[in-house]
Amino acid sequence: MPRIINFSAGPSILPQTVFEQASQAVLNLNNSGLSILEISHRSSYFEPILHEAGQLVRDLLGLTDEFEVLFLSGGASTQFFMTVMNLLPEGQKAAYVDTGVWSSKAINEAKILGSIDVIASSKDANYNYIPKGYKIASDYAYLHLTSNNTIYGTQYQSFPESPIPIVCDMSSDIFSKPIEPHRFGLIYGGAQKNLGPAGVTLVIVRKDMLGKVNKTLPTMLRYETHIQNESMYNTPPVFPIYVSMLTLRWLRDLGGLTAMQKINERKAKYLYDVIDAIPFYLGHSVPEDRSRMNVTFNLEDNSLSKEFQAFCEEAGCDGLKGHKSVGGFRASIYNAMPEEGVKVLAEVMKEFALKHA
Amino acid sequence: MPRIINFSAGPSILPQTVFEQASQAVLNLNNSGLSILEISHRSSYFEPILHEAGQLVRDLLGLTDEFEVLFLSGGASTQFFMTVMNLLPEGQKAAYVDTGVWSSKAINEAKILGSIDVIASSKDANYNYIPKGYKIASDYAYLHLTSNNTIYGTQYQSFPESPIPIVCDMSSDIFSKPIEPHRFGLIYGGAQKNLGPAGVTLVIVRKDMLGKVNKTLPTMLRYETHIQNESMYNTPPVFPIYVSMLTLRWLRDLGGLTAMQKINERKAKYLYDVIDAIPFYLGHSVPEDRSRMNVTFNLEDNSLSKEFQAFCEEAGCDGLKGHKSVGGFRASIYNAMPEEGVKVLAEVMKEFALKHA
Repeated sequence: MPRIINFSAGPSILPQTVFEQASQAVLNLNNSGLSILEISHRSSYFEPILHEAGQLVRDLLGLTDEFEVLFLSGGASTQFFMTVMNLLPEGQKAAYVDTGVWSSKAINEAKILGSIDVIASSKDANYNYIPKGYKIASDYAYLHLTSNNTIYGTQYQSFPESPIPIVCDMSSDIFSKPIEPHRFGLIYGGAQKNLGPAGVTLVIVRKDMLGKVNKTLPTMLRYETHIQNESMYNTPPVFPIYVSMLTLRWLRDLGGLTAMQKINERKAKYLYDVIDAIPFYLGHSVPEDRSRMNVTFNLEDNSLSKEFQAFCEEAGCDGLKGHKSVGGFRASIYNAMPEEGVKVLAEVMKEFALKHA
Repeated sequence: MPRIINFSAGPSILPQTVFEQASQAVLNLNNSGLSILEISHRSSYFEPILHEAGQLVRDLLGLTDEFEVLFLSGGASTQFFMTVMNLLPEGQKAAYVDTGVWSSKAINEAKILGSIDVIASSKDANYNYIPKGYKIASDYAYLHLTSNNTIYGTQYQSFPESPIPIVCDMSSDIFSKPIEPHRFGLIYGGAQKNLGPAGVTLVIVRKDMLGKVNKTLPTMLRYETHIQNESMYNTPPVFPIYVSMLTLRWLRDLGGLTAMQKINERKAKYLYDVIDAIPFYLGHSVPEDRSRMNVTFNLEDNSLSKEFQAFCEEAGCDGLKGHKSVGGFRASIYNAMPEEGVKVLAEVMKEFALKHA
């Protein structure tokens, strides 16, 4: 059977070489005679893996020693409230920008535990743009943003000038392009897009963000716990961390984030060019805020949707169904999606439009 | 290189057939053309896996519909406080029994969030026995126990008659023998011993335990969230759940928990017989509370420890070093440890003692 081209929004495609290396390690890790699935996290087998994963995160993003890198579990959904618990002192407020379902979830969790203001939103246009030009008061503890919005296909092309540290959910575009780390107080993301398989969450925290909340938290919910124990306070998700390390190695070998950014921009252009050239396809995002990770579009004639999906699947293109809140289609073209895969889809889209012209 | 016999306390050995099936699925899941690492958790690929895993848990343990089965992340360490948040109403107390490091951790987390009494402890003898004969008042919300204590090698052979529901950390002996589900209000355990690789946590909760706490909790910390969303409120740890499902299939095919119990008792006997027959080895646990999962012992002559460890490794026996709070050695012989592996260790122990007689 030929390999499927997987456009799933996440968990999503990883590099083929990573699948091969991971498969081998499940049988025999580095010729140790042990499976990656059975090694102790306290063993000499795992410690270099965890260390290398952390170092690759630092090197790729260009993090200074001001930042701690943590591999946790629980997903971005757990970070929605851990950020508030750890970063928002009593009596202070945080600012949130609402760019869709995921930032709304972050907002709802923050409201359970603290006091926040939603200072900008693009809800008025079904989140088809990134709000800009709003005022950010300097007395907020932090500004929370969602860098890429998988459902709507919008993405910050640049982050707002902020007088306060940005706390950013980068689940769906981290490692897709260089960032300026000093603008951020905390970055978090579930692994299952650009980093690795589902089951591990990356947290990058600037040390001076911590120590301002006095409340006694459960030990597992304190960032300090995981910093002091180097992500090993409890048993970490060994295999998801291992596969993330392999994926980060692949990214380094490919040239790092600057090289990745160029590839990602080229890939996105193939699809947006089709959308812009053929009125048959209607892009959801306004052009200036278009995501390089998730290309969302509807058909001008919705009644052809089922036929279009079948036509794509016939060509091996899987996972294109859009999220119910936007409808239509979504091509997720994360780091590991090969250019060839995107080209296949672009051709399929042209062909289908021609057929129905 | 021959396969190592892995006596690690966890993450720990899984069945060889599971390694082979998991390795294949990382390349190509059920001939789908997709890796298990890239499939969407909302896809038709994953839903049957999650469902089968849950059904196997139900069938193997004999759970009625009163119980919900959840696959969460965060490890048993997260359950230490989620149990308190969800099960202990304000103004009520819970009872805890202290049988070592892991129950002490559960106790410490409970004290952060609620009011509890430690009604029994074996701390007075470095946790080398399971407390018995203590009174359990019926006005506690629940009784918290740790069924098997990996560090000390002690295990409940039977659970106390309790007028209140038992909440039990079964991380290290679940699925090793049949249990009586109706005695428990909630059972939890990290997967990385008998169930699967690190990265997923099993929670079994009796529905009538819930709904008694009024406080608004973060969404991810409410059991109801995960029940309503069938463990898919957020992206679940897909691969750890898949491997757990494979391991549960293996257990079912082997004859289920009654068959597993017999094998586990035979395996433990090989080692305890050596310890009882040769004064050279000193078991840590009192005989009546000995664990069938973790056999802990010291050498009468501690100065031979390094030589003993090297002698074991020479024979392929890995992961035997004891925990620092007990010292000496620990052979973890979870479900997947083959009888042949235990026999090798028993022979090595006899041979080493003979050499130094």
